[in-house]
Amino acid sequence: MHRTHTCGELSLSDLGKEVTLAGWVQKSRDLGGMTFIDVRDRYGITQLTFNADDDATLRANARELGREYVIKVNGKVIERSSKNLKIPTGEVEIKVSSLEVLNSAKLPPFLIEDETDGGDDLRMKYRYLDLRRNPVRNNLVLRHKMAQEVRKYLDGLNFIEVETPVLIKSTPEGARDFVVPSRMNPGEFYALPQSPQTFKQLLMVSGVDRYFQIVKCFRDEDLRADRQPEFTQIDCEMSYIEQEDILNVFEGLIRHLFKAVKGIDLAEVPRMSYADAMRLYGSDKPDIRFGMQFVELNDVVKGVGFPVFDNAELVVGINAKGSAEYTRKQLDELTDFVKRPQIGATGMIYCRHNADGLKSSVDKFFNEDELKKWSAAFNSEVGDLMLILAGPADKVRKQLNELRLEMGTRLGLRDKNTFAPLWVLDFPLLEWDEETERYHAMHHPFTSPKPEDIALLDSKPGEVRANAYDMVLNGTEIGGGSIRIHDRALQSLMFKHLGFSPDEAQKQFGFLLDAFEYGAPPHGGIAFGFDRLCSLFAGLDTIRDVIAFPKNNSGRDVMIDSPSTIDDKQLNELKIKSTI
Amino acid sequence: MHRTHTCGELSLSDLGKEVTLAGWVQKSRDLGGMTFIDVRDRYGITQLTFNADDDATLRANARELGREYVIKVNGKVIERSSKNLKIPTGEVEIKVSSLEVLNSAKLPPFLIEDETDGGDDLRMKYRYLDLRRNPVRNNLVLRHKMAQEVRKYLDGLNFIEVETPVLIKSTPEGARDFVVPSRMNPGEFYALPQSPQTFKQLLMVSGVDRYFQIVKCFRDEDLRADRQPEFTQIDCEMSYIEQEDILNVFEGLIRHLFKAVKGIDLAEVPRMSYADAMRLYGSDKPDIRFGMQFVELNDVVKGVGFPVFDNAELVVGINAKGSAEYTRKQLDELTDFVKRPQIGATGMIYCRHNADGLKSSVDKFFNEDELKKWSAAFNSEVGDLMLILAGPADKVRKQLNELRLEMGTRLGLRDKNTFAPLWVLDFPLLEWDEETERYHAMHHPFTSPKPEDIALLDSKPGEVRANAYDMVLNGTEIGGGSIRIHDRALQSLMFKHLGFSPDEAQKQFGFLLDAFEYGAPPHGGIAFGFDRLCSLFAGLDTIRDVIAFPKNNSGRDVMIDSPSTIDDKQLNELKIKSTI
Repeated sequence: MHRTHTCGELSLSDLGKEVTLAGWVQKSRDLGGMTFIDVRDRYGITQLTFNADDDATLRANARELGREYVIKVNGKVIERSSKNLKIPTGEVEIKVSSLEVLNSAKLPPFLIEDETDGGDDLRMKYRYLDLRRNPVRNNLVLRHKMAQEVRKYLDGLNFIEVETPVLIKSTPEGARDFVVPSRMNPGEFYALPQSPQTFKQLLMVSGVDRYFQIVKCFRDEDLRADRQPEFTQIDCEMSYIEQEDILNVFEGLIRHLFKAVKGIDLAEVPRMSYADAMRLYGSDKPDIRFGMQFVELNDVVKGVGFPVFDNAELVVGINAKGSAEYTRKQLDELTDFVKRPQIGATGMIYCRHNADGLKSSVDKFFNEDELKKWSAAFNSEVGDLMLILAGPADKVRKQLNELRLEMGTRLGLRDKNTFAPLWVLDFPLLEWDEETERYHAMHHPFTSPKPEDIALLDSKPGEVRANAYDMVLNGTEIGGGSIRIHDRALQSLMFKHLGFSPDEAQKQFGFLLDAFEYGAPPHGGIAFGFDRLCSLFAGLDTIRDVIAFPKNNSGRDVMIDSPSTIDDKQLNELKIKSTI
Repeated sequence: MHRTHTCGELSLSDLGKEVTLAGWVQKSRDLGGMTFIDVRDRYGITQLTFNADDDATLRANARELGREYVIKVNGKVIERSSKNLKIPTGEVEIKVSSLEVLNSAKLPPFLIEDETDGGDDLRMKYRYLDLRRNPVRNNLVLRHKMAQEVRKYLDGLNFIEVETPVLIKSTPEGARDFVVPSRMNPGEFYALPQSPQTFKQLLMVSGVDRYFQIVKCFRDEDLRADRQPEFTQIDCEMSYIEQEDILNVFEGLIRHLFKAVKGIDLAEVPRMSYADAMRLYGSDKPDIRFGMQFVELNDVVKGVGFPVFDNAELVVGINAKGSAEYTRKQLDELTDFVKRPQIGATGMIYCRHNADGLKSSVDKFFNEDELKKWSAAFNSEVGDLMLILAGPADKVRKQLNELRLEMGTRLGLRDKNTFAPLWVLDFPLLEWDEETERYHAMHHPFTSPKPEDIALLDSKPGEVRANAYDMVLNGTEIGGGSIRIHDRALQSLMFKHLGFSPDEAQKQFGFLLDAFEYGAPPHGGIAFGFDRLCSLFAGLDTIRDVIAFPKNNSGRDVMIDSPSTIDDKQLNELKIKSTI
């Protein structure tokens, strides 16, 4: 037997026991005739002692152990003279009677400690060593726990987890599909699913009633925005429900996760329409850990003769409370921030609410009386700073959203340990795509329009609202879904509006359209981005750190050096050839 | 709200309640002025009544409902006059006050009942309708429950589930790899994993200590033998363990599953060496639901002058107890059975143990005294039938294995509700491949040889035993694993014996060999075939029926018509072209 206990479990109640431990040498130090070694495993660290007076050879062997050597020791649990109360095992140590080296170790390329000296690239190449560090490995433990709790909650509500296929069919919209040549069917390809959408809908037609799956999905696209070519969803679908049922069940899921994993009692999740989210935060995923809602100023600031405002479609601002003492330099930084090409504002107007009055950057155009109207609109108090942008409504809202988030960060209002979830509802069904000059489904083609808006499909397609909803957490979309179409005629109408000919629709989605004719129940669902959810729970900025073996921005696994070329024999068998 | 209750939950305790139900019309019948409709969902069936005296229009509408229409009704729970005690809801019915058709349904292509009239092909094409049938959908529910219980058991033992990548690296041995062209890395390919083997070993190097994953794996190979191109494993790995620890933990898993899912207290799982399994059953996966062990007869039957025996490497038989009254015709059937090309015996000798003495098919060569020696060897009694084959040892054992299984089936000894698991241990490390004329790893290249056999690697590679083990259930291998090599030098030696040059080994598995140098702990693991395990639990002959959307023998999903051709634009972007 390699061990009787882990390195994280011995305490004073084990005094006198003869134990066997195994693990990695964390560190080693000499003190007089003694050698102390910390041995580490996933569960903790235990101190080993070797005394030259008892056994000089044993102690000499211990002194030769390098960092990360794998050892096994027998010994007796004794009380430590100098206790370390920071760790659970810190009141005891093992007086070692025998030592075996199970494996040696080269010097690791970076320190295996909570704070390491390894750069990103090195840690990715030696990911198996980076995972030895507690903060990294703990993310995997957290992820495991979250998956277990998701399953526990949904199982308790009669959901069943059904595995849907990974080798599915490519679709023309699947411009970002990964494809897989079939050896048995030469010239033909499978695709890897971007989501199990159609399968979970078919499961509803099957009467599965409540489905979920924690499932890998795949998208071959630009990875710069903290994305991964393979990612994991909590994918869910329910029959005989309305939107309200979905919101309740999955708000319950999030509340359960916070309670079970983080011990947090989450308050009821507020709800906001897409229209309000855009109006008040300039974003369909507002970070509501802090207020600083948009204040629209057209009625207040126009007509005074300041052309920037007079010519703008929308003048809108935020009140950065308590920031009136921002220096000129700080304000210039903010102006530079909003003028960055990726944000694109042309400038920023501000107004300080000082103890001695209101002071704006456009005093030439606005006198004290005018500024008082501003103050009233912003509900400002002494010490506040009003920041204002002007321009085309859609653009200026997006710009002000960035400024608001920046101010939230600067003011420390975006604490990673504060969690503010939000339902955003009533998304538009369609969005106009400038590039292809046609409407696209904002969520996906299976999303149901609101019944009262169906009549607008022909006349004002952009105004049709969907029975679609997103869950947002701290400004990040963590899940989204919709009530689906379950009627063949309506689904065909949707395909028509999305530019499919009837033939194309039948060729691509005939199996689903056909299924709708055999008694499809009303249904809807949601999918959560599990990687993102885990990273938010872990307080991390990137999803990479909650993935055991992530790929880099080029879609490469630098540890195993993949993707890679394959030999011609394999390509010949698959009846394909590379055109590079 | 679409329903207040499911169709499976109302009982006498709900009498008088106003309820809303939704589901599919299972069947409809008229009786006098009444119409009775069974409405069905995943949870059960409830009877609805419509009375023309109360509401003639409502009843007329009810009469127009077709099978599989999706309906929603309001009504009152009343006591049934004619009770059906076979179903939980059979003591009540709903006196319907309003009816809404949520969706109509075309006549299904086959009956949606436990016994259907649909052929295999039709049911695969309309899999979503086949899944509506209780016996099929119940398999998915069973599978869900098994997965939940696997996770519960392993979580309780500190295993963590870690997701390993699906897009990995192709290996030259990966002749059956599915590959995936990378858009971001033109000319390069990912491969889909045949198992997460190297990743789980790296997780052990990482100190994850106890890993599991219920994970999709992929193999592009001949599917005739009830295989699927994508299949699911319960994949597990542990550090600081020996074979005995693995056997105990995973015997515990199987016992837990039987208890939790089927309410069966499984006895301790017996263990048998590979050598014994081959000698006593002619198979490395013996079905031990019944005895009928092989009896070797070389010492008993040779030298009497019967050339078939005298010239054979091995004469071996089984005692089919109680089958002495087999007719000549039945015996001819058995002879024909073993002479089938896929079994390949040249003939079969038998000996009846009748009340009036022993009667063999080779009386010309063996007199009563000789036959008494046979009887003693077989331990036969009056009424028994001895069946004997002769030939080259390896071949004749395989043939007799088939005959034994056939006799077990004929004698009703292979009941699907009897469960006899078995550990088979001490597998050979290597097996000779006639085709490539070299040794292959019997399990995989990472399997550890037994330390005491390492010295034989050069001289008698075929005799080296591995620390490898299979779990067998009712004659089917359900899981297999091994203690792994964790030492770079030994792993390199293994690669050498498997015909890798040092360069090839480094190119393909350098990341693992390197990892072994940084303090790899002793480790080992096992993987269970989850589809197979579920099918055995469900008493099914094929894994297809425990898979929601299986593929056919050609690897096709006939429902969605996949794989399929993809357009040239997509191929161009991927920098590949079809050579068909």
